[in-house]
Amino acid sequence: MSIIYNRVALIGLGLIASSMFWAMKRRGLAGEVTGFARSEATRATARRIGLCDRVCDSLTEAVADADLVVLAVPVGVMGAVAAEIAPALKPGTTVTDVGSVKRDVIESVGPHLPEDVHFVPGHPLAGTEHSGPESGFAELFDNRWCLLVPPEGTDPAAVARLRRFWQGLGSNVEEMEAEHHDLVLAVTSHAPHLIAYTMVGVADDLRRVTDSEVIKYSAAGFRDFTRIAASDPTMWRDVFLTNKDATLEILGRFTEELFALQRAIRTGDGDHLHDYFTRTRAIRRGIIEAGQDTDAPDFGRAKTSS
Amino acid sequence: MSIIYNRVALIGLGLIASSMFWAMKRRGLAGEVTGFARSEATRATARRIGLCDRVCDSLTEAVADADLVVLAVPVGVMGAVAAEIAPALKPGTTVTDVGSVKRDVIESVGPHLPEDVHFVPGHPLAGTEHSGPESGFAELFDNRWCLLVPPEGTDPAAVARLRRFWQGLGSNVEEMEAEHHDLVLAVTSHAPHLIAYTMVGVADDLRRVTDSEVIKYSAAGFRDFTRIAASDPTMWRDVFLTNKDATLEILGRFTEELFALQRAIRTGDGDHLHDYFTRTRAIRRGIIEAGQDTDAPDFGRAKTSS
Repeated sequence: MSIIYNRVALIGLGLIASSMFWAMKRRGLAGEVTGFARSEATRATARRIGLCDRVCDSLTEAVADADLVVLAVPVGVMGAVAAEIAPALKPGTTVTDVGSVKRDVIESVGPHLPEDVHFVPGHPLAGTEHSGPESGFAELFDNRWCLLVPPEGTDPAAVARLRRFWQGLGSNVEEMEAEHHDLVLAVTSHAPHLIAYTMVGVADDLRRVTDSEVIKYSAAGFRDFTRIAASDPTMWRDVFLTNKDATLEILGRFTEELFALQRAIRTGDGDHLHDYFTRTRAIRRGIIEAGQDTDAPDFGRAKTSS
Repeated sequence: MSIIYNRVALIGLGLIASSMFWAMKRRGLAGEVTGFARSEATRATARRIGLCDRVCDSLTEAVADADLVVLAVPVGVMGAVAAEIAPALKPGTTVTDVGSVKRDVIESVGPHLPEDVHFVPGHPLAGTEHSGPESGFAELFDNRWCLLVPPEGTDPAAVARLRRFWQGLGSNVEEMEAEHHDLVLAVTSHAPHLIAYTMVGVADDLRRVTDSEVIKYSAAGFRDFTRIAASDPTMWRDVFLTNKDATLEILGRFTEELFALQRAIRTGDGDHLHDYFTRTRAIRRGIIEAGQDTDAPDFGRAKTSS
């Protein structure tokens, strides 16, 4: 593949940005990649492991002359970063982000950017429970979805170019409206994360069962929850605070449904439980058919490779 | 390894029993293995794939002369099966089970068994989301825990022999008291399963987000829930109905905690969220150190092998 952006600036050097760097290098999608992280330790690590062609010590240095600027910082600080880089952006550059919430990012970033800059918010649906500059790998986006959420009136050519870029990183790309994005993600990601965090916290609190028992006997079920609940605390705090309405709506429905199942358990209504569990099984089948996971029987088992 | 039981009878030929068969064969732990399943189709499948040395058409034929009888049927029918096999058991035989709930199994199976039979309930903490006679594989129990829950007064030699047998199947074995087992499992397995089922049901109900969107964009988080929620409906219905008290207790604590986090989101209390998420991260670390999972960064990604 050939170069899509001559110069790319990665702002924030965590899991997503570092994976983007390795994926860009794999296919030669960028001429030069600059990088910036607020923490000096992160910048030192990036230099040590060869993350980015050039690690910069200031935001403005990193974005100077960039054709694509990627905001890969927690959603809660996107606005502040946008305000700081705005004066240094070259006319015609594209600014995108990788935040898990889109309405809030559009509202906090958009107003800071100059008229002659293309703002195309994005969200790659990919991640691991690891974070930091050393957690990235080139294959992270392969066959995953990346959602682009361009505000009305965005230059179609800028959107098309960013789409080609994400395809080059390995993703399938689709466009979506911001409100809808935030609701879809509340269902498929934000509410499940909060629920997993909650369950892991409950297990930790229970006096009659020791932590070491929980850990030792965390078979199928709980272990997957702990994996989810190990994700970056700052990122997730910001997700919940900025996608508040959709998350609370889904959690409201969740507790309603959970109470109905609890009542079925209490009253011994086995048919209700069996019907419910049979229905949810079909959804899993759909996911496997959609190619988002494999059917390998590894659930509940220690993985030796992946 | 040498033969531990000359003749083993597997009652119910699902994921656990079929995995036990292949694991027994791998190490030569049994002289002859007989099998029985209520469904004729299951028995036909078992014969076709060579599951069990001899598939029997009746329960009594299967258990005749067995040194070890393994009840691998849903918890809700354990008692009925025990009543049916009791007259056919040979004196000195050991009866065990693989149910996920222990107090209820002890109460429903125990009274049916003759005095001269050793009853040593057990629970291998292993599984996948697949079920049926073709889902088993020899490695299922490798490095997983198997909990034995012998009632007071059980012959220590019978327990020791069953322990060696499970070790031969690949498991680490520990003994536990029945009430405590049921509470530990409510935390690590039963409540998480119900929660996953619930969340998958909510996603399916939501009109404004289509099933195909949920499936397509089920990144990290939701996809793990669907995997859990794909488990066998009959088995799980019985688990919740028979471990009612412990499950409801844990769910009560869970909703209490969830409401506190929901309030933190509503009021914008970022510190509460951040502290909570930081704490849960440590538990994950403990699980990895305890060897129950690996640190491989494969979460949220399609697995290509395992």
